[in-house]
Amino acid sequence: MSITNRFNIEQLGESQFDSPIKLSTTKGDNLFDFVSESDRLVFDLSLAHYNHCLSTGEAPICLQQAGPRQHIYFNSKEVTAAIVTCGGLCPGINNVIRGVVMALHYFYGVKRIIGIPYGYEGLNPEKGHGFVELNPEKVRDIHQFGGTFLGSSRGGQDVGVMVDTLQKNHVDMLFAIGGDGTLKGVNAIGEEISRRNAKISVVGIPKTIDNDIDLIDESFGFETAFDVASPILRDAHNEATGAYNGISIIKLMGRDSGFIAASASLAMPVVNFVLVPEMNFSLEGDNGFLKALEQRLEQKKHAVIVVAEGAGQELFKNRKEIKDASGNIKHEDIGVFLKEKIGDYFKERNTPVTIKYIDPSYIIRCAPANSSDSVYCSVLAYHAVHGAMAGKTKFVASKVNNKYVYVPISEVTKKRKKIDLEGEFWFSVLQSTGQPFFLG
Amino acid sequence: MSITNRFNIEQLGESQFDSPIKLSTTKGDNLFDFVSESDRLVFDLSLAHYNHCLSTGEAPICLQQAGPRQHIYFNSKEVTAAIVTCGGLCPGINNVIRGVVMALHYFYGVKRIIGIPYGYEGLNPEKGHGFVELNPEKVRDIHQFGGTFLGSSRGGQDVGVMVDTLQKNHVDMLFAIGGDGTLKGVNAIGEEISRRNAKISVVGIPKTIDNDIDLIDESFGFETAFDVASPILRDAHNEATGAYNGISIIKLMGRDSGFIAASASLAMPVVNFVLVPEMNFSLEGDNGFLKALEQRLEQKKHAVIVVAEGAGQELFKNRKEIKDASGNIKHEDIGVFLKEKIGDYFKERNTPVTIKYIDPSYIIRCAPANSSDSVYCSVLAYHAVHGAMAGKTKFVASKVNNKYVYVPISEVTKKRKKIDLEGEFWFSVLQSTGQPFFLG
Amino acid sequence: MSITNRFNIEQLGESQFDSPIKLSTTKGDNLFDFVSESDRLVFDLSLAHYNHCLSTGEAPICLQQAGPRQHIYFNSKEVTAAIVTCGGLCPGINNVIRGVVMALHYFYGVKRIIGIPYGYEGLNPEKGHGFVELNPEKVRDIHQFGGTFLGSSRGGQDVGVMVDTLQKNHVDMLFAIGGDGTLKGVNAIGEEISRRNAKISVVGIPKTIDNDIDLIDESFGFETAFDVASPILRDAHNEATGAYNGISIIKLMGRDSGFIAASASLAMPVVNFVLVPEMNFSLEGDNGFLKALEQRLEQKKHAVIVVAEGAGQELFKNRKEIKDASGNIKHEDIGVFLKEKIGDYFKERNTPVTIKYIDPSYIIRCAPANSSDSVYCSVLAYHAVHGAMAGKTKFVASKVNNKYVYVPISEVTKKRKKIDLEGEFWFSVLQSTGQPFFLG
Amino acid sequence: MSITNRFNIEQLGESQFDSPIKLSTTKGDNLFDFVSESDRLVFDLSLAHYNHCLSTGEAPICLQQAGPRQHIYFNSKEVTAAIVTCGGLCPGINNVIRGVVMALHYFYGVKRIIGIPYGYEGLNPEKGHGFVELNPEKVRDIHQFGGTFLGSSRGGQDVGVMVDTLQKNHVDMLFAIGGDGTLKGVNAIGEEISRRNAKISVVGIPKTIDNDIDLIDESFGFETAFDVASPILRDAHNEATGAYNGISIIKLMGRDSGFIAASASLAMPVVNFVLVPEMNFSLEGDNGFLKALEQRLEQKKHAVIVVAEGAGQELFKNRKEIKDASGNIKHEDIGVFLKEKIGDYFKERNTPVTIKYIDPSYIIRCAPANSSDSVYCSVLAYHAVHGAMAGKTKFVASKVNNKYVYVPISEVTKKRKKIDLEGEFWFSVLQSTGQPFFLG
Repeated sequence: MSITNRFNIEQLGESQFDSPIKLSTTKGDNLFDFVSESDRLVFDLSLAHYNHCLSTGEAPICLQQAGPRQHIYFNSKEVTAAIVTCGGLCPGINNVIRGVVMALHYFYGVKRIIGIPYGYEGLNPEKGHGFVELNPEKVRDIHQFGGTFLGSSRGGQDVGVMVDTLQKNHVDMLFAIGGDGTLKGVNAIGEEISRRNAKISVVGIPKTIDNDIDLIDESFGFETAFDVASPILRDAHNEATGAYNGISIIKLMGRDSGFIAASASLAMPVVNFVLVPEMNFSLEGDNGFLKALEQRLEQKKHAVIVVAEGAGQELFKNRKEIKDASGNIKHEDIGVFLKEKIGDYFKERNTPVTIKYIDPSYIIRCAPANSSDSVYCSVLAYHAVHGAMAGKTKFVASKVNNKYVYVPISEVTKKRKKIDLEGEFWFSVLQSTGQPFFLG
Repeated sequence: MSITNRFNIEQLGESQFDSPIKLSTTKGDNLFDFVSESDRLVFDLSLAHYNHCLSTGEAPICLQQAGPRQHIYFNSKEVTAAIVTCGGLCPGINNVIRGVVMALHYFYGVKRIIGIPYGYEGLNPEKGHGFVELNPEKVRDIHQFGGTFLGSSRGGQDVGVMVDTLQKNHVDMLFAIGGDGTLKGVNAIGEEISRRNAKISVVGIPKTIDNDIDLIDESFGFETAFDVASPILRDAHNEATGAYNGISIIKLMGRDSGFIAASASLAMPVVNFVLVPEMNFSLEGDNGFLKALEQRLEQKKHAVIVVAEGAGQELFKNRKEIKDASGNIKHEDIGVFLKEKIGDYFKERNTPVTIKYIDPSYIIRCAPANSSDSVYCSVLAYHAVHGAMAGKTKFVASKVNNKYVYVPISEVTKKRKKIDLEGEFWFSVLQSTGQPFFLG
Repeated sequence: MSITNRFNIEQLGESQFDSPIKLSTTKGDNLFDFVSESDRLVFDLSLAHYNHCLSTGEAPICLQQAGPRQHIYFNSKEVTAAIVTCGGLCPGINNVIRGVVMALHYFYGVKRIIGIPYGYEGLNPEKGHGFVELNPEKVRDIHQFGGTFLGSSRGGQDVGVMVDTLQKNHVDMLFAIGGDGTLKGVNAIGEEISRRNAKISVVGIPKTIDNDIDLIDESFGFETAFDVASPILRDAHNEATGAYNGISIIKLMGRDSGFIAASASLAMPVVNFVLVPEMNFSLEGDNGFLKALEQRLEQKKHAVIVVAEGAGQELFKNRKEIKDASGNIKHEDIGVFLKEKIGDYFKERNTPVTIKYIDPSYIIRCAPANSSDSVYCSVLAYHAVHGAMAGKTKFVASKVNNKYVYVPISEVTKKRKKIDLEGEFWFSVLQSTGQPFFLG
Repeated sequence: MSITNRFNIEQLGESQFDSPIKLSTTKGDNLFDFVSESDRLVFDLSLAHYNHCLSTGEAPICLQQAGPRQHIYFNSKEVTAAIVTCGGLCPGINNVIRGVVMALHYFYGVKRIIGIPYGYEGLNPEKGHGFVELNPEKVRDIHQFGGTFLGSSRGGQDVGVMVDTLQKNHVDMLFAIGGDGTLKGVNAIGEEISRRNAKISVVGIPKTIDNDIDLIDESFGFETAFDVASPILRDAHNEATGAYNGISIIKLMGRDSGFIAASASLAMPVVNFVLVPEMNFSLEGDNGFLKALEQRLEQKKHAVIVVAEGAGQELFKNRKEIKDASGNIKHEDIGVFLKEKIGDYFKERNTPVTIKYIDPSYIIRCAPANSSDSVYCSVLAYHAVHGAMAGKTKFVASKVNNKYVYVPISEVTKKRKKIDLEGEFWFSVLQSTGQPFFLG
């Protein structure tokens, strides 16, 4: 039966070299088997989808299984690989860098690995950042530290200039660790490479602490993020109970998607309200947040509120724009805004409250990866290298339905993943916090 | 299209009551929809299986989606529920207890919840342990502690006696948190209940720190287990490098399956050898472990070895049995055995080595759940309650292919899950440690 | 030889009861000996002071050794004790509460222990907070949590009203856990009690996360504070190196004294500049902070700055006052101010910098006590109880020169302890950071 | 007035060079003042001792204050320094190494710093270990790791050979980080150097996780040790309560002194019995440990026992010696012994108990230093360097009465520090555990 082409990965060309990894092609010999191009996994595992395919004759949407191929595109010993890390920090970046270097060096015998410093800036010679030579010795211990060993930057650089740099330095494969923007960027690099008919594989490893990359199960660093946030919520709860009508507000990351806020609240069930970008809520009125908070205080004399940074942006719509010295519109901070509004509300009502405001964002961003993320990062890195060696390009290595797969970059950057307010996850969050459904 | 009955869950009877949870049955209203009995998920998501079903006309194997049902079997306000925890400790037990109590109380308004102390012993009146009344206030903070709030015991009790106890106390549903033996036990209880034509739902929540329950993605507590083990490996590495030819041996849990040993080693990549129950290895000879260790020391002057408690049992086969005072055959300790054998080997060769032996089992077993496991435990607990309320029985709540489902207990206890030595996971472990493939 | 009266503790009256604790009065029997009133410890242990006393005939300043007395003032079985916690949170408060309750109950058989909720507010009946009965069962696990089990509040209440409350409730001893203001408050309560010729012992247990109580070695919670701050500095360093010209600014507690900022920086030696309230520094000019920062960036491309909240207040002197909606002068935030000034400085010079601002105050304040503080809190609590039972009043239990002693409250509240810029501690900090001496 | 010579430090010769550190000699200029040889601190601060000196005319025993001297013995720019770490691991060794290197390099401009690998073995050329060149770059991050960067070994080497090595390599100062044996060793090296009339300063930095070095307040790493042990006790308590008549036995370090066992138990007050080497206790009889344990179980159904490794050695006296294969007498393990005896005791009485045995020694030994120890290690290292530069020799840098001082090695190695069973510390431990006094 045929399958759809939707998730097919582009190849640089024929794989003509034997993999230097000594694996097997037969079952039952206790040796891992090379993964074949025909190893595919169904994307939608609902029985409904199955029945739909059956009745319509449509092919199911399938994903390519990640892993080492028996025949590879590159002559691995002559490969030059490059690694770049872009955007904000996220736990696990160093684990991925380490994993890529280890896989290139030990599995494929790659002799030249270039670290691009400070994100895409490092691919622009004008910035003068130079390169960092990478090898196992250099990256051996970096997984124990948060941050990125290579440095990062935000924003893009001219695609032509970046491809020039890759070509001048005879780079055969570029591993870009970054979020939505970075992935779009590396895809654009890949397209420019195709246009030039060059043979450089570009690979994305999705990094977004917000967990908002579409289609994939989870992005690395996300579990660590709410693992680090979770004791902070516990402590914030202690702050709240430590005062009469104590209110703790914790702002967590989440520009477009509230996964960290919601998961941390589910993990540390002391939270009474979680506010995420996906939901609309009003402050005022009988169904508003402030009224619900007031009722909570009357009952329990304390409250813990977790708010994602991107929540409640619609509340600012009718607000007068505040400009900074340069005339720029100041970004609205929902945490500070909530703090003020709550303060005003109870002041008007002569209800004494004590508000503590906690913004642990950077503490979370630069934490080292926990064990689960460490495992994930290593395996992602290995799969990214296997894919690049096989001559695949413009793909991400990731996990879907708990299986490692390759997905075209263009597919995961179509839109951002968001919490489904009708989904099971959000329902669990509501069950755990006990917050009124009408807030959503 | 029909589906196979393989994973069907037994029902106590018709669901005639409306769920007290205010949910929706329509998409698009931002309210979670009740889960229907026809919501099923394909178990094997390989394209090969899919094509097999299509070509043969066989129905795909499907799992019931977990979640709240619109119509439920029990009149929830009159329900008496009981919770029991059995077997060895594992991070997250208290989170599950807490989650079950909260779900029963807040979602379904259950007024009577009984904690059975000290495992199945607590269902045997002769033991005189009594019961513990459970309510939200009592379990509010227990998720912050390891261990089990209810106490546990190993081994079973007479099934008839236990069912007598349940009936005498008008228990409508029993939640049993435990491993393979516990699940078989609760299934036997369920069968005796059927025989008596009683209407008591029995539910299992799989608890095995070894992660060796078949079919399911992961058991709760497992991630915490290797998260706690992982810094111990880091420190053991420091012990190893702290002496000339320093060797650290860390014994980790894993009677039949080496998941903890392997995952911890992957998470903290300072490990040079991982020995698991799934692999056969010889100590002596050119392809033996000791030779490989010797070569490692010659090169690097230190080595870190992780061994699962059930590894290398075949090495004891020709050993003279040692009996204890009572005449019982003493259980062989592979960790101590390895330590001795390594010591002897290098003594014979006049190679000075310093061996440090670390057994952190209890430290890991009684750690509190990390955030990822906390989330998992809460949601498992919620689903267990939803399933019981719907009148399902002899099932476990769990996660398969990253989705929450119900599975018959009889299916997950057929055999233990083991590391597939030909699978991707073990391949990643070998890649990470760099240990010789021939050891396997 | 006579001693000065400077550190004498006031007594409620003669100690006429035998201590219920079974201790010894003879050396060599392996039983702790009761502490006698004549057990004193020299306060200034420099040889210079010794010689001064010798040559002038002056008596050395001495402190009363803390500990159980053989004869006590109260009939312990009939005692009513009260505990109150005031001011901001600090790690260890719950350990002290627990220790006081355990000591009262188990050592002295006290039957009635009252918890005063929400600080001094709880002694004002108008607030309607009521009391909490305390016993070992209730406080058994509270040491594992941060915050205060009793709740706290800031500011004082009418002294007469508070003493009325104590008398009406037949309180014999009041333990007040709090900082400078709280201690002054409880001293005032003690003076009002004397004026009324009542026999109520008032005891202070100094709590100040800033470690700014005079004379004493360290206040409880302080070590935990910089223990919790320290990995945050490590992570902030990772943030700084993660960007080209990355600058991390961490604001730590320290209104009048910079002990936390300085100690954390010494503990995690990745900090390049520590700014504390004790030092004067200018931003501009060749010897200014901004110039020094610029030079640091030129050399190393990143910088970590720790600033105590009370540092640099003189920088605001010539600034136009900003008023809030109610016309109140807004408190100046040195952290935010520095962030702005640094941003402006490098903007003017067209030097790209990336600034990360971290304020972990509440995360630190509500952390549970580390082990060293746990020990300290328990022993402090025990000594506070022994002192109160002996009929001492208006004293604090604390540690001076590494020995447990009692000190009159009036002595420790004369002025705040500050970092001695000419002292060894600050010199170590300067040595560790390598920051220019002229900044001071 | 004269002072006793007891704690005088030997000097290599006159200090003829000006210190390169820019400090002050006048008070009030906000610059740390050089420490002078006449800055002394009284050792015994009891009023009794003070009065004794005054009345007898005896000089008080005084200690030299640690710190930088204005005039130093060595021409610092031409100095070769060496560092060696000996004996078992202890948290903080790397912090001390780092501190010594930083102080030598940045404060004194020392250009050549030699790391001696694997303890005193590294000073024996026959072992062939070579040297490690040390500089700030190399040691920058080592404080974040446990263990010792230089490696260690136990036992001594020929003193003559070691001094030969120092002289051949033109070493001017040797910093030895180690315990009782190491300090005696480096003192012997110092004496051989004196005999040869060589001018090499030997400095000890006391390292003993057991905290058993005499006279000094605390050895580095000790606080971390019980900080790491403490949550293990909490978890062990959860193990104990997790079973009916659950008993957890935790063996902690402490060959001759039970400070870790006692401090950890005080820090985590879930412990019911602490057994230390300083106390004698019998197992059997009405006042024996087993009877007390039985009573505890009857009351509470669980017990937590902490035993120091050196406790109860007298219990083995009448036991038949067990010899190993080589004919050596096997060392008795009190933890395992207790476990067996307890098991037997309750078996005889048909009382079901569940015993969990935990030995976390290596986990504790190789933990990284906590913040308090990090500060302590840095400052100790700085003072060690200042002392060596001033030409002092055969001394340790340490803290006494909460002040940094230099003490002759010969004074701190006279005997081991032990818990005073009549002292306040042990009394606090007894108060916290509630264990019967007669056990002691």
